[in-house]
Amino acid sequence: MNELRQNIITRDWVIIAKGRGDRPDDFASGKKSRPPLPAYAAHCPFCVGNEAETAEETFAIRDRLGWRVRVVPNKFPALVPVGERRRKLSGVFRSMPAVGMQEVVIEHPRHDMSLALMPVAHVADVLRAYRNRYATLRQDERIEAIIIFKNHGEAAGTSLAHPHSQVVATPIVPNQFRIRVEEAIRYFDDMGECVFCRTVADELASYERVIEENDHFVAFIPYAALSPFHAWIFPKRHASSFDEITDTEIDHLAPVLKNVLARLYLALENPDFNYSVRSIPTEEKRTDYFHWYLTIIPRIARTAGLELGTGMFINPSVPEENAALLRNVDIARVEQV
Amino acid sequence: MNELRQNIITRDWVIIAKGRGDRPDDFASGKKSRPPLPAYAAHCPFCVGNEAETAEETFAIRDRLGWRVRVVPNKFPALVPVGERRRKLSGVFRSMPAVGMQEVVIEHPRHDMSLALMPVAHVADVLRAYRNRYATLRQDERIEAIIIFKNHGEAAGTSLAHPHSQVVATPIVPNQFRIRVEEAIRYFDDMGECVFCRTVADELASYERVIEENDHFVAFIPYAALSPFHAWIFPKRHASSFDEITDTEIDHLAPVLKNVLARLYLALENPDFNYSVRSIPTEEKRTDYFHWYLTIIPRIARTAGLELGTGMFINPSVPEENAALLRNVDIARVEQV
Repeated sequence: MNELRQNIITRDWVIIAKGRGDRPDDFASGKKSRPPLPAYAAHCPFCVGNEAETAEETFAIRDRLGWRVRVVPNKFPALVPVGERRRKLSGVFRSMPAVGMQEVVIEHPRHDMSLALMPVAHVADVLRAYRNRYATLRQDERIEAIIIFKNHGEAAGTSLAHPHSQVVATPIVPNQFRIRVEEAIRYFDDMGECVFCRTVADELASYERVIEENDHFVAFIPYAALSPFHAWIFPKRHASSFDEITDTEIDHLAPVLKNVLARLYLALENPDFNYSVRSIPTEEKRTDYFHWYLTIIPRIARTAGLELGTGMFINPSVPEENAALLRNVDIARVEQV
Repeated sequence: MNELRQNIITRDWVIIAKGRGDRPDDFASGKKSRPPLPAYAAHCPFCVGNEAETAEETFAIRDRLGWRVRVVPNKFPALVPVGERRRKLSGVFRSMPAVGMQEVVIEHPRHDMSLALMPVAHVADVLRAYRNRYATLRQDERIEAIIIFKNHGEAAGTSLAHPHSQVVATPIVPNQFRIRVEEAIRYFDDMGECVFCRTVADELASYERVIEENDHFVAFIPYAALSPFHAWIFPKRHASSFDEITDTEIDHLAPVLKNVLARLYLALENPDFNYSVRSIPTEEKRTDYFHWYLTIIPRIARTAGLELGTGMFINPSVPEENAALLRNVDIARVEQV
């Protein structure tokens, strides 16, 4: 029989419904072929040589061959760092100027590169760029929350194929952040410990859903994964905000992130995916109850009316089986891609 | 300058970012062509003549020509009406058997039909089927919440092209339901009125975002619409649960629903969309603070890492302009489709 599982960090319920993939499907089609990318694309503003096409760099990491990672303001921003953070209220209508920052982290000079395929040291540089931008953008007093995320592939909502991620700083606390924090506080008040630390301990004790682990990080499929191969990466050390990550921790997060993405790349043939790094709102820094983490969502399942209408997901796969499949991938094979 | 708007019913913030559609896009492509459907499909379990392919009917509306609307249990259910609603707790891991009901409302005998194109009286029959199933399924003591929804088109997650919607009864209250109800209670406690009734009054007073209106219903683009052409239909009479709808109200909801869908059909060339009907959890029935409503989400924007990571959306269009565009559609044209 199928199972309902509740994610105690988000309180979301998921129906773990193995075998639903056997339903008749008018739209079933072969895997979409992904055209191979060129190493460099003349039209691409993120490719090496086209630096003049972007706005002025806010951060970069260079070696003697040139830049390795560049950060630039988004040229088509929805939020701009101009204006005051002032609410306008009129009856039920509540608005404010779209003040904020949107930066693009160009992860590699090459158009056809991918975090799954990069050397670990290069992935660490991308993480260092994230940390720099997080720590810098939070200085602006108008900012309440910062989200780091990546859209890989068309189904994940990217508009440019060149490997990049984004850092968005908002002048409000997104409601989902508030809800997560309130849940974490409630657990802390009830149980006297961080719900994320408890989850890490319980996942490591069971090990059924673990994909990667080293001294500082663990990657696992959540017990109540929303969708197939939904994965979480948690730091083992309790910290509420991404910019608290140390150099040693960056050097340990890089291989875990790369390896999880490489396992997905090999197991699911370079799937479209999103990831995001969730931290506490920037007004708070160190708390006993909130723990930053990275969540990866391969975009291989369709969300439909049930998900949109209830927030409840049907996962047509089993988290323990997803984890076993990923653990069994021979990641040395990425070197041959 | 762009604007941030907060939906005070959901507390979600949206960035209203007109003109973002002008960004460069490696994946920009022409409109996907939708192959025309046959009137009847031999392989389709929902087509007239193939009734033996479905599970046993739980409800139907017939006239002298045969059935107009049929309701059958989902043949590939994620939830089944067997077993006990009992939690299993083990550390942070919380589960229960996937007890519940999933029914399919087959909206029309014809494979190529659509609510946008049906006679109003037929749409009313579909709504009557919803009401019957809502009222019947809530009798089961294990049920805590019922969601009615429709997936139209592949991007909306449907697997069968024949026009149908779904009714799902769950043994838990989805967290998103709880959050909505808590918000409504908070508004009621602060302001002494229903936030939905207040929204209807303010939308009618402004009329900028209204698409359709009659004596009992109003359809409008929410002030903080999540995505282009996101639309809400609210009953004017305060009622917390969909099954409180009267016959008169069904006869007024049918033309509003049909006309909104017809306007979308004509303006956006038969877009993929989801809709869902949100009611209060079934244990509660009449409350002063919660108001049922129907939400329509055309699936024409991509959700990416920002939306998944924060719950905050970027809407690259302006709600007032969306509403004006839909109001200006000549819906008499649907008769020629």
